[in-house]
Amino acid sequence: MAGKKLENMNCSLARALSEVGGRWSLLIIREAFMGSIRFDEFHVRLGIARNILQARLEALVESGVLSRQISLENARIPNYQLTRKGSDLLPVVASLMHWGDAWINTEKGAPVLLVDRNAGEAIPRVTIRTRSGKPIKSNDIELHAGPGADARTKRRFKVPLTPLLALYESE
Amino acid sequence: MAGKKLENMNCSLARALSEVGGRWSLLIIREAFMGSIRFDEFHVRLGIARNILQARLEALVESGVLSRQISLENARIPNYQLTRKGSDLLPVVASLMHWGDAWINTEKGAPVLLVDRNAGEAIPRVTIRTRSGKPIKSNDIELHAGPGADARTKRRFKVPLTPLLALYESE
Repeated sequence: MAGKKLENMNCSLARALSEVGGRWSLLIIREAFMGSIRFDEFHVRLGIARNILQARLEALVESGVLSRQISLENARIPNYQLTRKGSDLLPVVASLMHWGDAWINTEKGAPVLLVDRNAGEAIPRVTIRTRSGKPIKSNDIELHAGPGADARTKRRFKVPLTPLLALYESE
Repeated sequence: MAGKKLENMNCSLARALSEVGGRWSLLIIREAFMGSIRFDEFHVRLGIARNILQARLEALVESGVLSRQISLENARIPNYQLTRKGSDLLPVVASLMHWGDAWINTEKGAPVLLVDRNAGEAIPRVTIRTRSGKPIKSNDIELHAGPGADARTKRRFKVPLTPLLALYESE
């Protein structure tokens, strides 16, 4: 039993994970943000096995997150570059990196900082905000069925849900 | 060759992915936000195989993203609830969901909307902002070695990097 296929679920998170889930995809995308373009650069900098890297690069090209270009210096060596769809993952990469800084890399501090070049200071954690730009608390957020909801999703969100908070939220 | 272990990398993204990467973990966390607490609720709502679900729940408890509680109604059935560490993944879940809305679920629109309860309108996409709250463009962001950088990371970010944009960014 392999379970339901992510790409068939009526859920944008599931479909996003069907394209960039898996242990390596977001790290390959991080490397692309950091300037890696050739297979060997990804291979050396990530320490990922060649066959796994090849399969993940193919899949990311297939889903339009990376594009494969012919290198001008050497036509036999393709370049892999972020498409607009791929570049648009920067908030995902940043928010997950900040979460790792806050909850995992806590002894020595952040290995890498995202810095606001003009202010010369670290960028604060990515937060959810209202349309007017104010940070919003989880209990002011509701989940509603959207225009692309199927019958099952509509049933589930007939009454809007509020994201459940941690048991220890008030600690 | 399994490649380098994610949890040993000098990178908060890699370490975050060692805890919540993989195809299912963020969907289990989404379910926890949506109010699922018992094994069978996760099983039915995600359509995930029982053995995989059990392994992922154990791992999420192990890393402190979920806590396992004894149910008051039935002491043999544990509850799984988000800890503060787990709740703190809401911006990650939201940004990946919004990315899926923008790039994958484009025919019919978003299956589920995050709504600002007070304004009664959908929350805009999660963006990276400066400390003063203004959205920041990728080319105004620099990557610097942080306090937890090891020697290799320090060498790589001796000159700060700017996240590489898509080839087609200007289209």
